Amino acid sequence: MRSLRPGRVARVMILDGEREHRHEMVVALHACYDVEDYLDGRLALDRAYTLRPDLILIDENVGPDGGLQVIHSLVRDPLLREIPFICTTAVVDTGFATEALRLGARQVLRKPFRVGVFLQAVSSTLNRRIEDSWEELEPVQRDALRNTLSVFNGIADTLSGTAELPFRQVKAGCASLVEAVTNAHFRDVLSGVRDYDNYTYAHSLRVATFLAVFGHGIGLRDNDLMVLTSGGLMHDVGKIGIPHRILNKPGRLDDGEWHIMRSHVTRTADVLRSCIGVPNGALVVAEQHHEKLDGTGYPNGLKGTQINNLARMAAICDVFGALTDRRAYKAPMPAEKALTIMVNMGQALDPYLLRLFRDILLDQGDQLEL
Amino acid sequence: MRSLRPGRVARVMILDGEREHRHEMVVALHACYDVEDYLDGRLALDRAYTLRPDLILIDENVGPDGGLQVIHSLVRDPLLREIPFICTTAVVDTGFATEALRLGARQVLRKPFRVGVFLQAVSSTLNRRIEDSWEELEPVQRDALRNTLSVFNGIADTLSGTAELPFRQVKAGCASLVEAVTNAHFRDVLSGVRDYDNYTYAHSLRVATFLAVFGHGIGLRDNDLMVLTSGGLMHDVGKIGIPHRILNKPGRLDDGEWHIMRSHVTRTADVLRSCIGVPNGALVVAEQHHEKLDGTGYPNGLKGTQINNLARMAAICDVFGALTDRRAYKAPMPAEKALTIMVNMGQALDPYLLRLFRDILLDQGDQLEL
Repeated sequence: MRSLRPGRVARVMILDGEREHRHEMVVALHACYDVEDYLDGRLALDRAYTLRPDLILIDENVGPDGGLQVIHSLVRDPLLREIPFICTTAVVDTGFATEALRLGARQVLRKPFRVGVFLQAVSSTLNRRIEDSWEELEPVQRDALRNTLSVFNGIADTLSGTAELPFRQVKAGCASLVEAVTNAHFRDVLSGVRDYDNYTYAHSLRVATFLAVFGHGIGLRDNDLMVLTSGGLMHDVGKIGIPHRILNKPGRLDDGEWHIMRSHVTRTADVLRSCIGVPNGALVVAEQHHEKLDGTGYPNGLKGTQINNLARMAAICDVFGALTDRRAYKAPMPAEKALTIMVNMGQALDPYLLRLFRDILLDQGDQLEL
Repeated sequence: MRSLRPGRVARVMILDGEREHRHEMVVALHACYDVEDYLDGRLALDRAYTLRPDLILIDENVGPDGGLQVIHSLVRDPLLREIPFICTTAVVDTGFATEALRLGARQVLRKPFRVGVFLQAVSSTLNRRIEDSWEELEPVQRDALRNTLSVFNGIADTLSGTAELPFRQVKAGCASLVEAVTNAHFRDVLSGVRDYDNYTYAHSLRVATFLAVFGHGIGLRDNDLMVLTSGGLMHDVGKIGIPHRILNKPGRLDDGEWHIMRSHVTRTADVLRSCIGVPNGALVVAEQHHEKLDGTGYPNGLKGTQINNLARMAAICDVFGALTDRRAYKAPMPAEKALTIMVNMGQALDPYLLRLFRDILLDQGDQLEL
């Protein structure tokens, strides 16, 4: 299977003969993906050779010969047949669904469908390619990715009220991450989530990794290191409830959007309190990671010594992660440049800890390709 | 299609040869459904004649002849073939999935799957039968159910961060409910959600209906009636995030569970504030519906005149709805008995409004079969 190319967001191609429905799908996807939409199947397949989409959405109703014909052409073409596809249909009894599945459709969605269901189908298909690529990693890195992902899925289930997540599961999920980090095998872990389309998961895994590196570097061991790392993995889980439009907005947020965005801190604290047995250290990391030494942070405008040391470390790793993350609307910043910017951020971050973090990262290798 | 029998919770039959997996599914389902699990397909089908399950879960691996054989027997049997079934499989390349879908499986889930995904598959299959039965209703009742359900799905998407819900959609969703009520066609609406397995939706629809009856009865019209009704529909949306174990617990909640359960009021207010354009009246209904006149309510222990009149009406309809709702662990209470209990609840509910509500309900017909 052709792997996702590094350095760009996923490309999704939409084929649907119905203008309004095509438009709805574009609107739902454009915040997270490169999207191109077509009403003509032949044109779309021609374009697919150069575009090399990561996913094709094929409606039963697409010109000129119908969706089934497009699928037949797709799966017969040696250059295109590895591209995963999802099908949509307004009717269920034409046999299209059965035939589409037989030919390899990952899913068939019946119209009308909920935006949430649609986005989850797209996301899980794109992510399955990434998860499949983890198969090639060493067990220690692979487990770090699989176990932390399973923690994240558990949180999403907790938030939707269908399950509960005791903290011991979070801790077990972090144990393999800590192991990968303390054995200096963390670069593969970071690159394993580079193109993951759940940004909250990818960013959280990165922050947790940096915190594990940082904590290990300053001499934290065992349970202390686990609490810090798991605090990093959980610090943004409240973002799972923030609308995509706001979470992925490339420009400046307006006042109302900013209010909602900031609310992720208290949302996170609520989630952690509803989990069973979350240690105070992990909770403090989540609650204070946007506080700043000079008192300009949120939600409580804490100052100086009011801010816990673990939270100061988390603030550093969070900013570093945000600058070096890859987003739909920005290229990742090189680590060196990010660190320089952070040193010049005034009195927001703890200067002593920031210097330590920089030294520890530089110790990890000649080049900081994260 | 055989309709769901009134007066009981849905019955789900699990067929799976793997003990641990069978156990996991039972645990996930038992809070909401009557569950029976089998490792032998023949035994299960024998039992299905008397049990008449509403849904059968069939794993590929089930004794003695495998899941596919069970499906073949099921769809050939005129007494069983209307029962919807969902299939599960640990492997994807055996052709089982394609064949199961061809034979009519509503869904095929690949193991391991997330609890949330599993519950959603079960729930949507069970609810589809109920939604299909709405087809036979008059347009005015049918629209009331379909539109309010779509509002609820929109809220669930909002909560999972995949969409946003402007209040004008909520209001549009309530317009048909208000129409059904003001034309006295609300009994079919109430019975249409009687067996719906999303309790928060079913209860909210009922409370909104009672509020519309109540508001219309005391002379509210147009926008005022719509604000009250939509406040009723939204008053419990924060419960979408409460774990099933707590939401469906038959016995008394312990302190921790009770803390989480009570948090649904502030959760609801958070959701409504993140929607665009929610009027203050609807927000107040949600925020104060658990306050009590004598100051013993929550979250703020408001007293007497501190409690808004719309919220007093909502408190009455909420208690009435809760007593007369059908739950997995209790039979619904007759309306007359519920009203008598409410009159004797001391100074919690507004006595004048309660008398009015009782009179308005009694005006609706000789018998209060809701």
